[in-house]
Amino acid sequence: MHALSCPFPIRQYPQVLLAHGGGGKLMQDLINKMFTHAFGPRPESGLHDSTVLDLPVHKIAFTTDSFVVKPLFFPGGDIGTLAVNGTVNDLSMSGARPLYLSLSFIIEEGLSMESLWMVVRSVKKAADEAGVKIVTGDTKVVDRGKGDGLFINTSGIGIIEHGLSIVPANIREDDAVLINGDIGRHGIAIMAKREGLDFETTIESDCCALNGVVESLIKAGIKVHCMRDLTRGGVASALNEIAKDAYKAVEIDEASVPVDEQVASACAIMGFDPLYVANEGRFIAFVPESQSSNALEILQAHPLGRGACRIGRVLPENGGLVTLKSVIGARRILDMISGEQLPRIC
Amino acid sequence: MHALSCPFPIRQYPQVLLAHGGGGKLMQDLINKMFTHAFGPRPESGLHDSTVLDLPVHKIAFTTDSFVVKPLFFPGGDIGTLAVNGTVNDLSMSGARPLYLSLSFIIEEGLSMESLWMVVRSVKKAADEAGVKIVTGDTKVVDRGKGDGLFINTSGIGIIEHGLSIVPANIREDDAVLINGDIGRHGIAIMAKREGLDFETTIESDCCALNGVVESLIKAGIKVHCMRDLTRGGVASALNEIAKDAYKAVEIDEASVPVDEQVASACAIMGFDPLYVANEGRFIAFVPESQSSNALEILQAHPLGRGACRIGRVLPENGGLVTLKSVIGARRILDMISGEQLPRIC
Repeated sequence: MHALSCPFPIRQYPQVLLAHGGGGKLMQDLINKMFTHAFGPRPESGLHDSTVLDLPVHKIAFTTDSFVVKPLFFPGGDIGTLAVNGTVNDLSMSGARPLYLSLSFIIEEGLSMESLWMVVRSVKKAADEAGVKIVTGDTKVVDRGKGDGLFINTSGIGIIEHGLSIVPANIREDDAVLINGDIGRHGIAIMAKREGLDFETTIESDCCALNGVVESLIKAGIKVHCMRDLTRGGVASALNEIAKDAYKAVEIDEASVPVDEQVASACAIMGFDPLYVANEGRFIAFVPESQSSNALEILQAHPLGRGACRIGRVLPENGGLVTLKSVIGARRILDMISGEQLPRIC
Repeated sequence: MHALSCPFPIRQYPQVLLAHGGGGKLMQDLINKMFTHAFGPRPESGLHDSTVLDLPVHKIAFTTDSFVVKPLFFPGGDIGTLAVNGTVNDLSMSGARPLYLSLSFIIEEGLSMESLWMVVRSVKKAADEAGVKIVTGDTKVVDRGKGDGLFINTSGIGIIEHGLSIVPANIREDDAVLINGDIGRHGIAIMAKREGLDFETTIESDCCALNGVVESLIKAGIKVHCMRDLTRGGVASALNEIAKDAYKAVEIDEASVPVDEQVASACAIMGFDPLYVANEGRFIAFVPESQSSNALEILQAHPLGRGACRIGRVLPENGGLVTLKSVIGARRILDMISGEQLPRIC
């Protein structure tokens, strides 16, 4: 794929025109020579507006996500990588095996065709790595000044092959809260690039597909009670959402939450709390205390869980409060933030 | 629903803020008090990023569509109506029964909260009318000047309960080409509103959900060979796409293509050919000649097919050419246009 050149005549059309979204010949050309070239023909030939899929089971997960990240390209990925992995991860968090994605572009007139092709290649690479297929799509072009280069929507379908119910309502007193690695890389990578900040080494986004590491937990028989990927709002928001949905109290041990030194310095400089900074390849799992050591070993044995550790537990109290036991032993409430620290992070 | 007031405090937040897409409290508030209020709780309570669905069959149709129509509100509908019906119709064209939609908003900071609520109500109303459920969603806000009020993506899942293969490859010599009504209303309604043109009476968009009328054909035993809704590029583009995919020649009788008088005048004034103007509630069906009268009766008996008629047929020749027999009897090639007549029509 990477060696492939693009059969769409990029030199002839160095920028995306309004007509590339107009439903005529130019749009057909873009779809056939760039998108279909990258993603292959649709599953059932000749289909147009929708795709027919034969699923092996009746129980599926369905999700949608729009991506408006700025800038489009950042250390560790781009909007295409993000669009695939974000939706794959949303499906994975319910324990589904992601199979099919849709891909919808909203392009601003004037976007360089080379950028579009780079994103298409990233989508293809990320989809291949995650083992999902792009099966249907849509292309719209908006006039110059009415978009911001490129927005992408991906929706996804996954199949559920296990009998677990992986939802907040299922977390139990004493459940261990595990995380698969250090936090804050994605948010800081985006922010540093956007603001032109230079650190000693480049902080890369942690953007990746989590379906493999999640599958390793479930296949090993870990009775996962709840999972969530730590995107907008970071680990603090995810914990708050789950605790509130479950009406249970959760306690986090601050010292045990892994933060890379560079990320910590960047957060200090920019005034961010890493607990609220977005990630794109990190998730928390609530597992029964009795299985927590086993689960941790499984995570650590996976390339995307090498930095896994236990960061907290579910308390006996009700009420949905998340508390943080600080490094010096003090306890404070870890609340949800009102807005956001970093806009347009995904 | 229409009588319902919105529990989200619109007065307190008369405009959408960046923070309403930030993953924090404000976003949760908007989701819970506006979106969940309108669309109801997700099918399995407590789920976050994706929704778990139990399907009655294994064979499904899956589709995606982003909507960037300008203006957001137009005679006969708005971007919300369009976003539901567009995706419902894409599913219907493969003969699927649409069941579930995702709904993803990309909102420009500063959009009036009242407009958002109006769109949400339209989405709900259109979904109810089409018999589909909004089961998962996403909300992003982009900074002022980086969007255009509101873009919507809907993706959809439908189930296929029949044994037909409704694809271009299935059209046969002598198949009749039927249409369910007059053409060009949607495109002209948008354009007139956008350009501030006044006609004697207001031309309304034909935007509607076609699943009911399609179902009536299939349930009556009509062996539909191919269908397509006539959106961007109009009837001419749809015919060209099908003819090319099938490598068959199709002939259309110009005099038989219904165009409302007002729409025809508007097209003449603006220099548009109605055959290329977008529709949002019209489709063509290729049916066996032997069933064409029966199919036409079924269409005409349905409220959305009262203006149905036969507009052409499949010729014995190969090659994918669409020809038009003009009113005076001349034959000309009806080609695909290169770009578009009307940008941002859907």
